[in-house]
Amino acid sequence: MKKKNLPTILITNDDGIRAPGIKHLWNAVKKMANIVIIAPSNEQSCVSLSLTIRHPLLIEKFDWPENTPTWSVNGTPADCIKLALNVILDNPPDLVISGINQGSNAGRNVLYSGTVAGVIEGIMHDVPGIAFSCYDYYDPSPNFSIVEKYIPLVINHVLEQPLPLGTFLNVNFPSINAPEIQGFKMTTQGKELWMEDPEERSHPSSKISYYWLGAKLLQCEEAEDSDIMWLRKGYITAVPIQVSDLTDHAQVLERRHEFNKLALS
Amino acid sequence: MKKKNLPTILITNDDGIRAPGIKHLWNAVKKMANIVIIAPSNEQSCVSLSLTIRHPLLIEKFDWPENTPTWSVNGTPADCIKLALNVILDNPPDLVISGINQGSNAGRNVLYSGTVAGVIEGIMHDVPGIAFSCYDYYDPSPNFSIVEKYIPLVINHVLEQPLPLGTFLNVNFPSINAPEIQGFKMTTQGKELWMEDPEERSHPSSKISYYWLGAKLLQCEEAEDSDIMWLRKGYITAVPIQVSDLTDHAQVLERRHEFNKLALS
Repeated sequence: MKKKNLPTILITNDDGIRAPGIKHLWNAVKKMANIVIIAPSNEQSCVSLSLTIRHPLLIEKFDWPENTPTWSVNGTPADCIKLALNVILDNPPDLVISGINQGSNAGRNVLYSGTVAGVIEGIMHDVPGIAFSCYDYYDPSPNFSIVEKYIPLVINHVLEQPLPLGTFLNVNFPSINAPEIQGFKMTTQGKELWMEDPEERSHPSSKISYYWLGAKLLQCEEAEDSDIMWLRKGYITAVPIQVSDLTDHAQVLERRHEFNKLALS
Repeated sequence: MKKKNLPTILITNDDGIRAPGIKHLWNAVKKMANIVIIAPSNEQSCVSLSLTIRHPLLIEKFDWPENTPTWSVNGTPADCIKLALNVILDNPPDLVISGINQGSNAGRNVLYSGTVAGVIEGIMHDVPGIAFSCYDYYDPSPNFSIVEKYIPLVINHVLEQPLPLGTFLNVNFPSINAPEIQGFKMTTQGKELWMEDPEERSHPSSKISYYWLGAKLLQCEEAEDSDIMWLRKGYITAVPIQVSDLTDHAQVLERRHEFNKLALS
């Protein structure tokens, strides 16, 4: 039953429709909006903005409490948003939210994350969005319920003062094992990222080597005013991330004169 | 046999190691550098910066003319670069080049492209890079040999005047069916992108619906000085793309005062 005067929010994630984080995201927002959930049927961590073009996609109805309209898609978060906007929904939502991701999407992890990619896909369709993740890289089951109450505050901020087209908000919660949450910080993107840490193994019968990419957190020199530094101090961080023009304009100005003269002999 | 005084260039792509484009890229650069090829064993179009974390990766030796050291990896372009830098190569290359992609990676396609992602993965490791693609979206087998001679000019430009860490060059060749190539343009990222165009089908026995994402080119209003506009006019375009700080700094300044006051009640 659609409630009038409330915004419509589309929820997705990359940990899959059965992951705990998406249940807590729904719980955080269900009273403030008409909710639709469209999420991957299986985990899609690190799939970035990957699209599924070589196998067909199935859209399946999925049971969710309180009759929340919910579907799963056997693809990526970006696939979910594409099918939501083209096939499942009659009208675009007012907002796409994604998460709550188990693990950091702060710093330079933005471009690898499937959680963030669901939001980027909305941005490519001019639908605003917010990604929510937990900077909790050693806890396999963070207590997401602690952060639920902060989510509507962030969403209302974005709904009341829309971001420009092409920009979304990337929100990370500090480690829930850290001291209590210190407050909100709007800040800039840090440098830290999940880096590969390949491990070689040997197949039991053929003895052929294979590799697991593995992961370790690459710590970098960070600006004081960056999401990484504020997260370490216990703050909830929000970084406005711009994805519609990635041009390094300073380099264009500096190089174009010489580059444009490259001979065509 | 490694040639002294020549740079080392690592070649990858997303169309897979058997695709025609990568052969032409190698042919274009083989005399100017020590070449190593490490590319996906199968096509990886639209995989973005996706990483393979749920199945193991195999590195296989692959035959290539003139004893060029070549391996295939059963993963994405980003996987290839990660294994190249961690497992296969003793030292990082001077440059990663990727392509030649069959199809446009101009405009906003940058974030979807596997071709570009191979270069971005190098950038995340502070290895400079250039992505090469053909803005030829209706020709399934463009005559890549026509563009080979322009590639060393672009590479020498980047080797002689390095880009800042965090920035790579995204190069697109104009349609080879267009009138002759007009010249080089260093320019800004346009808006055009491949947009989904889902098609519903019905399974032959179960009658269940499934969807192919499909693709159509979304044409947008473009700035005169953008890669899309110059490509349409027959120029080779190069856009310096910056991926290490995606912060929308203007929004941080405008919003932070109010956002940071959000109550923690």
